[in-house]
Amino acid sequence: MEGFRFSTDISVRFAETDAQGIAHHASFVVWLEVARVAYLAEHAGGYRAIRELGVEALTTEVNLRYHHVARFDDRIRIWTRCVSLRGARFRYEYALECGEVLVAEGHTAHAIVDARSWRPRRLPRSFVDAVARAES
Amino acid sequence: MEGFRFSTDISVRFAETDAQGIAHHASFVVWLEVARVAYLAEHAGGYRAIRELGVEALTTEVNLRYHHVARFDDRIRIWTRCVSLRGARFRYEYALECGEVLVAEGHTAHAIVDARSWRPRRLPRSFVDAVARAES
Amino acid sequence: MEGFRFSTDISVRFAETDAQGIAHHASFVVWLEVARVAYLAEHAGGYRAIRELGVEALTTEVNLRYHHVARFDDRIRIWTRCVSLRGARFRYEYALECGEVLVAEGHTAHAIVDARSWRPRRLPRSFVDAVARAES
Amino acid sequence: MEGFRFSTDISVRFAETDAQGIAHHASFVVWLEVARVAYLAEHAGGYRAIRELGVEALTTEVNLRYHHVARFDDRIRIWTRCVSLRGARFRYEYALECGEVLVAEGHTAHAIVDARSWRPRRLPRSFVDAVARAES
Repeated sequence: MEGFRFSTDISVRFAETDAQGIAHHASFVVWLEVARVAYLAEHAGGYRAIRELGVEALTTEVNLRYHHVARFDDRIRIWTRCVSLRGARFRYEYALECGEVLVAEGHTAHAIVDARSWRPRRLPRSFVDAVARAES
Repeated sequence: MEGFRFSTDISVRFAETDAQGIAHHASFVVWLEVARVAYLAEHAGGYRAIRELGVEALTTEVNLRYHHVARFDDRIRIWTRCVSLRGARFRYEYALECGEVLVAEGHTAHAIVDARSWRPRRLPRSFVDAVARAES
Repeated sequence: MEGFRFSTDISVRFAETDAQGIAHHASFVVWLEVARVAYLAEHAGGYRAIRELGVEALTTEVNLRYHHVARFDDRIRIWTRCVSLRGARFRYEYALECGEVLVAEGHTAHAIVDARSWRPRRLPRSFVDAVARAES
Repeated sequence: MEGFRFSTDISVRFAETDAQGIAHHASFVVWLEVARVAYLAEHAGGYRAIRELGVEALTTEVNLRYHHVARFDDRIRIWTRCVSLRGARFRYEYALECGEVLVAEGHTAHAIVDARSWRPRRLPRSFVDAVARAES
């Protein structure tokens, strides 16, 4: 997928389908999180490393545009990139493919807060550097 | 909430929380659906009535902006309105409050398809009329 | 339901259905928790009151026998009783009805642990007394 | 794990944790299903092959005994075997390990029904044979 350097795959679980016979649209939101966790594991020492810096990453926005249904056991490739790191904030962008079909696109926005006070904290330098390396 | 005439309440389930101690952001997507179902029950004979017309409503977009965390057992009021009915498409807009606090805002977009062929179908007249009555 | 003095109702959410067109069996496990929370709210000052005693209730066993399918928007009555309080442990028993139909039966087992050390703790006296009042 | 010949691995998703900081107990029920799907893919041509025989497998019982907490990103090995095939019914048994730690054990019971009438149907011969090969 043009513009993306990282992807991770998931298979649609039966529990993630609904009575329309398709993957429920809320399942996609969980998959985006799975993709972020995989991205961090690949590029930034893992989500646990982030939390060990004494910060939490909150999700401040979710946007998903669904282009095609996904079904039980479909293998979905989630293309993922981290962008727009500024102050306490950053975003991820996603494209989800099933084979050659673009299933969905979306982005999420996040803010870093102190794990105790839950007040905004600047992005950890190690995270900013890791993303710069990952996306360049 | 100004501009909204309908609301429904949910309580945050323990299963909907995560290890940050807050309601997981994907849970909100499910709550929006609960609100749509309540809206249809109130105004359009229920979701089952829609499906009995031989159509399905697909979700084509989800957008949520999270302003404040919600926690276990918090009571969330979901203000809901149906807008922009055109051809096969319509949208819902939402504002989620916990007490006086605006917890989140969002919208979802939907398309009506034939329940057999899954091809786009015009919005059922009964639905358009019901929404017109509900929102006027 | 004979032998039960407390019940709470839930409606099957669309997100809780699966591609078989029925409520997914894992959803029932969440409903049992919703019922426990309602039971505690009615009888023991709420789950938060339990946690404010500095303890957590862990789930150590889940058993569910499914007798009849449940479907989207079905209203399920969850009959609930708390039994077998001994040392750090207690159980809940459940019967789930949809109208006159027995949909499922089950039980869960729980252990009280200290909220910091996660070591077993005797059941708080206030909880034991509240259950005794509730079930007598 | 003694007595088991098949296992599949999952990682605990963040969405599957709860405000106790551990994997929510209902998540395990979904993982058992993921394990069944992997077992069928390995041994019986996949769950889709079963459904293409015109039958559905319903879950009639879930039993889980939780021995140890699991946490975000823990890798869980789910040992799985299919047993007690008789008439329309069969069972799975499971042992869940995180490293050397036995996290949980359980079993599920299932019944085969006709995909149209939802009436009991004998287990398909191909499925019985595949399990016999897998477990011998």
